[in-house]
Amino acid sequence: MNKPLILVTNDDGITAPGIRTLVKIMNDFGDVYVVAPDSPQSAKSNAITLDKPVRCNSIKIDSGLQKEFACSGTPVDCVKLALNKVLPRKPDLCVSGINHGSNSSINVIYSGTVSAALEASLNGVPSLAFSILDYSFSADFNESEYFIRKVVKTVLSNKIYNSICLNVNIPKSIPNQKIKGLKVCQQAVAKWKEEFIERKDAKGDIYYWLTGKFICEDNNNNTDDWALNNQYVSIVPVKFDLTSFEMIKEIQDFFYD
Amino acid sequence: MNKPLILVTNDDGITAPGIRTLVKIMNDFGDVYVVAPDSPQSAKSNAITLDKPVRCNSIKIDSGLQKEFACSGTPVDCVKLALNKVLPRKPDLCVSGINHGSNSSINVIYSGTVSAALEASLNGVPSLAFSILDYSFSADFNESEYFIRKVVKTVLSNKIYNSICLNVNIPKSIPNQKIKGLKVCQQAVAKWKEEFIERKDAKGDIYYWLTGKFICEDNNNNTDDWALNNQYVSIVPVKFDLTSFEMIKEIQDFFYD
Repeated sequence: MNKPLILVTNDDGITAPGIRTLVKIMNDFGDVYVVAPDSPQSAKSNAITLDKPVRCNSIKIDSGLQKEFACSGTPVDCVKLALNKVLPRKPDLCVSGINHGSNSSINVIYSGTVSAALEASLNGVPSLAFSILDYSFSADFNESEYFIRKVVKTVLSNKIYNSICLNVNIPKSIPNQKIKGLKVCQQAVAKWKEEFIERKDAKGDIYYWLTGKFICEDNNNNTDDWALNNQYVSIVPVKFDLTSFEMIKEIQDFFYD
Repeated sequence: MNKPLILVTNDDGITAPGIRTLVKIMNDFGDVYVVAPDSPQSAKSNAITLDKPVRCNSIKIDSGLQKEFACSGTPVDCVKLALNKVLPRKPDLCVSGINHGSNSSINVIYSGTVSAALEASLNGVPSLAFSILDYSFSADFNESEYFIRKVVKTVLSNKIYNSICLNVNIPKSIPNQKIKGLKVCQQAVAKWKEEFIERKDAKGDIYYWLTGKFICEDNNNNTDDWALNNQYVSIVPVKFDLTSFEMIKEIQDFFYD
């Protein structure tokens, strides 16, 4: 039997510890191709590069068996290039991450990690986005590894819908407090309250740094935020149909005479 | 009675004919603030700028009554800055566009125009994204104007849900063929088939231009693509909860022992 062909990508860039950990894990599951950004591409959402050429070059980073390509584009560019120009055939799975920082709740719409996975699933490749709630590049991935292996094994060994995209967030490792398990859940209702930091350049002109606070007032216990706050791994199935079906009737009443 | 406060933005950049047309129209409806990208930002999706400072400067482009600000960031950066730093109060409406090119169907996930509108609605500001199916900067907006006025009037004069975001696409003007009316509909199931154009630089190194063909195999007559192909303006209510609720049960069965 042929080994599964697996595409690995991320948004923190091809040298980030998160993707190096993921590559190491995925080498145990199949033939791995890495096509990932050559520089950090966080919060790039589903952005694609139309106004600049995109480069994609073979690169060797460690001694693993994977083939690797560093791409000058966004995470979604990486997946489009991988599927169309780099991989020898359609892969059996795409994994994106491990992102350094949460992609739960509303973060899903800004995330390059999740968007890369979604782009694969749009093209009929089952996909998994992995994030750990630890921004540090020295994050401890030991506990994550067990759950990543469990999720990958489950998806590869079952006939799951081809367009599946699972957004998997993993709590930060806390000493003496084990992760309790997995929860399949829904995106919590939350938002960012922006706090723009104002600075002045050498000429005295103002510029801004975008920052903010994550505000979640969703108290339901079926959300990703609840799961993560209670030391569970959250799994949210993600889709790309943004239609607000529940609003169609109301909107029709407003617009049809 | 106070006039409505209206935020205008886009992704083609503050000098594009589409936004100039929209500003002119919106001046008839209220007090207009324009906060838009200082350069083209197409296909930027919900991307935000975290790794670079963002600038936002007052600018005067024409003799209209609006106040205008050119921003160095993405369309979503523009909206975040507008709501937090530029506008005197929370606006009553955000309009984005008129985009030069379609944002129907799957284009919604890549579109900077729609993402800007969605960002406003995330913050409780009703929003409208307008696009015309004509990439040309000399597009004829005469017929569009009637429908844009109709949609804006309907949204401003009714108590529509604050988080509403409507993705409005307008067919290209065809001589002797009038637009038939408005259709409230859902996102068609479609995708892009990529065709990367390969080029070589002066050193002989390969680079790529991303291009592709739009493939829609959705034959239902309740979609935006159907509406546009049949010379109707399409209106799709858009939401930011990406949870695939219909998959939760199935995924749970796979993961829970």
